[in-house]
Amino acid sequence: MQQVIDFILELEKLKGVTRKVRPLGLDRYENSAEHSWQLAMFAISLASYAETSLDINRVVRMLLVHDIGEIDTGDTIVYAEQGLEARKVAEWAAVQRIFGMLPEHQASTFLVLWQEFEQCETPESRFAHAVDRAMPVLLNLANQGQSWRENGISYERVVGRIAPPIKAGCPALWNYLEPRLEEARQRGLFGA
Amino acid sequence: MQQVIDFILELEKLKGVTRKVRPLGLDRYENSAEHSWQLAMFAISLASYAETSLDINRVVRMLLVHDIGEIDTGDTIVYAEQGLEARKVAEWAAVQRIFGMLPEHQASTFLVLWQEFEQCETPESRFAHAVDRAMPVLLNLANQGQSWRENGISYERVVGRIAPPIKAGCPALWNYLEPRLEEARQRGLFGA
Repeated sequence: MQQVIDFILELEKLKGVTRKVRPLGLDRYENSAEHSWQLAMFAISLASYAETSLDINRVVRMLLVHDIGEIDTGDTIVYAEQGLEARKVAEWAAVQRIFGMLPEHQASTFLVLWQEFEQCETPESRFAHAVDRAMPVLLNLANQGQSWRENGISYERVVGRIAPPIKAGCPALWNYLEPRLEEARQRGLFGA
Repeated sequence: MQQVIDFILELEKLKGVTRKVRPLGLDRYENSAEHSWQLAMFAISLASYAETSLDINRVVRMLLVHDIGEIDTGDTIVYAEQGLEARKVAEWAAVQRIFGMLPEHQASTFLVLWQEFEQCETPESRFAHAVDRAMPVLLNLANQGQSWRENGISYERVVGRIAPPIKAGCPALWNYLEPRLEEARQRGLFGA
């Protein structure tokens, strides 16, 4: 039991990992813990739009754990192109440390989920990726392109980075987003 | 699809609902969105300590949705004794409004989960309640009794309010907490 409690208290630190978008109506930046909650809710709500039959409970668990490595590494904007390999090595070390606080059986269950998300080869992990990529886009569309403008992210970089995983994981979600991104371009919501 | 998107953006507001405990190491108060994420992780991690066989996926979903009514009503400390019935009526109206943004089938699925948590009659909802009651206690034990002292909550009120649901939902968790609460009393971590 002490191992479980120590692990849960370690997870406190994800509440202090800040991302680049701001919650609608709030001045502060979003943190990765509340983001993970919203993704889980988004996945459940969106399940009927999945192309193939999915284990949605597995998607939810993947989304709950997918950012936990950021406790040691911090959040990096999805548009960062440098150092991807080094970041992945660091995140893997981080989740081994953090999940390794639990009894071995539970630790390995979480590590397997985390790896499945990273490898993105199953229908569940592809759906989870689509949800993860779409959420900050929806916030930016509702928030005058806040993180795109603050970080100088162009329309082309957004579409180039998010279209393939969203199309692969949930085509209906891409069909929804595509015209809205085009409209946002015309309204000047992107960075240069 | 627009209904799902509007619902997910409405959930943004839970990130702005503040609770009475502060995340460890942070100055601000916890919000109900990050709290819901942590409860889901706690439930999964604690599942092997359940007394009876449980549908842990259902517990996770219940914990993800259980605070969503606070978008309209705000968080109320669990030790508030006045106005419980009026708060429950207001929360029920709130979740009907918020889940009602979704297509009917999805709305009713969430409403049923929310009601199951509130009624607390199934093994899953009792386990979910135990996790929900224990989490702020664990934070207070790790944080010098911060919210107990700030709000003048005595040892007797804490134990009177949390012992029955935690014993009912996860006896092993109560066995863990009981001596630690006694030790906290001796260290003066409670309010008067």
